[in-house]
Amino acid sequence: MQTFKVPVGISNRHVHLSEEHIEILFGAGHQLTRTKDLSQPGQFASEEMVTLVGPKGSMPNVRVLGPARKATQVELAATDTFKLGVKPPVRDSGDLSGTPGLELVGPAGKVQIEAGTIIAARHIHMTPEDAEKYGLKDGDHVKVQVNGPRAGVFERVLIRVNPNYALDMHVDTDEGNAFGLKNGDLLDAIIE
Amino acid sequence: MQTFKVPVGISNRHVHLSEEHIEILFGAGHQLTRTKDLSQPGQFASEEMVTLVGPKGSMPNVRVLGPARKATQVELAATDTFKLGVKPPVRDSGDLSGTPGLELVGPAGKVQIEAGTIIAARHIHMTPEDAEKYGLKDGDHVKVQVNGPRAGVFERVLIRVNPNYALDMHVDTDEGNAFGLKNGDLLDAIIE
Repeated sequence: MQTFKVPVGISNRHVHLSEEHIEILFGAGHQLTRTKDLSQPGQFASEEMVTLVGPKGSMPNVRVLGPARKATQVELAATDTFKLGVKPPVRDSGDLSGTPGLELVGPAGKVQIEAGTIIAARHIHMTPEDAEKYGLKDGDHVKVQVNGPRAGVFERVLIRVNPNYALDMHVDTDEGNAFGLKNGDLLDAIIE
Repeated sequence: MQTFKVPVGISNRHVHLSEEHIEILFGAGHQLTRTKDLSQPGQFASEEMVTLVGPKGSMPNVRVLGPARKATQVELAATDTFKLGVKPPVRDSGDLSGTPGLELVGPAGKVQIEAGTIIAARHIHMTPEDAEKYGLKDGDHVKVQVNGPRAGVFERVLIRVNPNYALDMHVDTDEGNAFGLKNGDLLDAIIE
């Protein structure tokens, strides 16, 4: 049994937008305004926020992450889904077929997406060099041990490998809260 | 390694009130109105709700559970604590010394508690007969395995033994959501 240390990053609910939807929501020719770099190279939190509107309720001030993507994707914690009245599945980023839609409202307009709402499956980003060192490949799964008062084990944590990634485990706020985690905590990933 | 099956109950944020605080919040001589029996014998959800007011924000429609207790206790999910602006520790029910206070507002008045706000530590209720069968005693800890898309292990799950209990594992909404659980799911408790 080999282990390696991985820092955790806790993702709050957020939205990735297509170029087309950025223009509808924020105005023609609009570009996202970078406010903070995220742990993954090139990814950033933007100044822009949208309101999500679901069948049961709405949620204002949801952060847009940049840069623009091919398809708009809304990532919620399960806690959020009850307020909005949607039932998204736990999915890997980009795997959007058959997922629920939502209305997104921005200062310049609104968009009804037909699919794209998910609860993001927890995962670990790493470079090919890290993957080789640990004997892992893209699509593998590991366990991650958490200690402390809310100790436990995350099972089925997906490994994602890309030269542009930095070593980082992504969980959502429900998972971070359930395990008593804070951003940057170093956890033990377990390769079996 | 012995295992046993335990049904899970997911607790939303809620409040237990002292007799004195029931009267201040809902009026002199007021009695809680039972609307639904809970899994633990004698415990019930009441019709009554309060608004919680913290340094950063407030939270309306928080359910009062009955019957009245010796000390008022507010049980939050960690997700709730950010909205209210309080930092309660993970504690066993009743272990309230040094925990943060909050303001509780009801239709007849309000109460400022000096302590009593906690994130409830997950635990399993059982009878002395169950405890004997599994070789456990009050205060022991077990692990609990969860399967499915958000599989994992709860560690350090406290065993609470009392003749008035029914076999049941209590987690909060963050924990239920992080593991993809719904009320009544049967989990495997692991005795080591």
